[in-house]
Amino acid sequence: VAIAAKHVGTQATIVMPEDAPHSKLEATRACGATIVTYNRFTESRELIAQEILEQSGGTLVPPFDHPMIMAGQGTAALELLEDAGPLDRFYAPISGGGLMAGCAVAIHALQPGVELVGVEPEDAGDTRLSFAAGERRKIPPPYTIADGLRVRTPGALSWPVLRRHVARVELVSDEELLDAMGFALRELRVALEPSGAASLALALREGRGRCGVLLSGGNAEPALLAEAARRAAR
Amino acid sequence: VAIAAKHVGTQATIVMPEDAPHSKLEATRACGATIVTYNRFTESRELIAQEILEQSGGTLVPPFDHPMIMAGQGTAALELLEDAGPLDRFYAPISGGGLMAGCAVAIHALQPGVELVGVEPEDAGDTRLSFAAGERRKIPPPYTIADGLRVRTPGALSWPVLRRHVARVELVSDEELLDAMGFALRELRVALEPSGAASLALALREGRGRCGVLLSGGNAEPALLAEAARRAAR
Repeated sequence: VAIAAKHVGTQATIVMPEDAPHSKLEATRACGATIVTYNRFTESRELIAQEILEQSGGTLVPPFDHPMIMAGQGTAALELLEDAGPLDRFYAPISGGGLMAGCAVAIHALQPGVELVGVEPEDAGDTRLSFAAGERRKIPPPYTIADGLRVRTPGALSWPVLRRHVARVELVSDEELLDAMGFALRELRVALEPSGAASLALALREGRGRCGVLLSGGNAEPALLAEAARRAAR
Repeated sequence: VAIAAKHVGTQATIVMPEDAPHSKLEATRACGATIVTYNRFTESRELIAQEILEQSGGTLVPPFDHPMIMAGQGTAALELLEDAGPLDRFYAPISGGGLMAGCAVAIHALQPGVELVGVEPEDAGDTRLSFAAGERRKIPPPYTIADGLRVRTPGALSWPVLRRHVARVELVSDEELLDAMGFALRELRVALEPSGAASLALALREGRGRCGVLLSGGNAEPALLAEAARRAAR
């Protein structure tokens, strides 16, 4: 969002948790955005954003729960299918569910038989819980190192899309995330952040058939990247 | 070479320095190659390879000093020009000089005005020394962390090509290599080995105009990658 705002010559104000990785805060700031931090244990980012909008008259760009955000994120799957051809299975992380919802619609339009598997961190399994309950459930604020996947409940708009398309949702541990980051450094030569390595972590555990794996973020904290590098040893 | 041998169903025997990175030895072994190590301070890999060839009747694949090796490595520059369009300057590391020789021929055939800049580690500046002397010079075995750039003299076949096409050769320190590895992790999300980061290190120092920068290897030792990750902090 910060980069896009710079490109079109407007000012972005971004509401971020105060415990977001320093690297992510700094990278966003370096793109010219104004950052407003909040405490994700005691405050609501939706209310804070609403106040900013009322004062500034700006436009809200929600992180996931919007048809155009979902459609835009789904283009990642379109590009993947274009390169990879027919798949048996597709893995993507689920936070609010916008990325997976967009990808699901794109993939099932082109390849209806692909099994779609969502991935969440162990203590951020709100979508897995919601699948089991048959309705949206909300969890306490998670502590996982995958800061991009700490959303506490599936989106109102993404939820029905997930239910229709996603076959199952599995959980991965922070240990598996770090191991997957190490694997990505060693075998793919790619630096991932923990959230970006979630689908790879599950694919490494399940590993069968022809899988599409969405790697969805590389803004890692140096200390976590260093730990991943140590795990890259054979 | 190990991967290519596996693809065509033949056996590769690879002569590597015994102080090559553990990660590189293991990655090569994992591809099915037989590895013969040697002491690069007291032994000659050319003589060892010659003995193996006499016993096995195999074919020698030299690391750089061969017209087809140079031409093959030059395709990297072809791909770069295809993606990047017109350049002011092109940076590539020089070890034996095969990569730069192949790239130089490709680039100057298509864009004769590009300034070609070779990069060597500070204590592996055999080509820079040879440029100053106007003839091939040989240096003592280098200690740089850029293990892929420890060749001690320009190749007999690559040398005349380098002289004809390369404008200058510059040196980078091991510190600059680690900083460039950190920059690549943070800004490009790419894991490089020290040798692979040499041209980036110089480009970061000089940084002007429209530059092509060849990143040429990502088989980094975990400890060096961890150090690079620490330097990725803003």
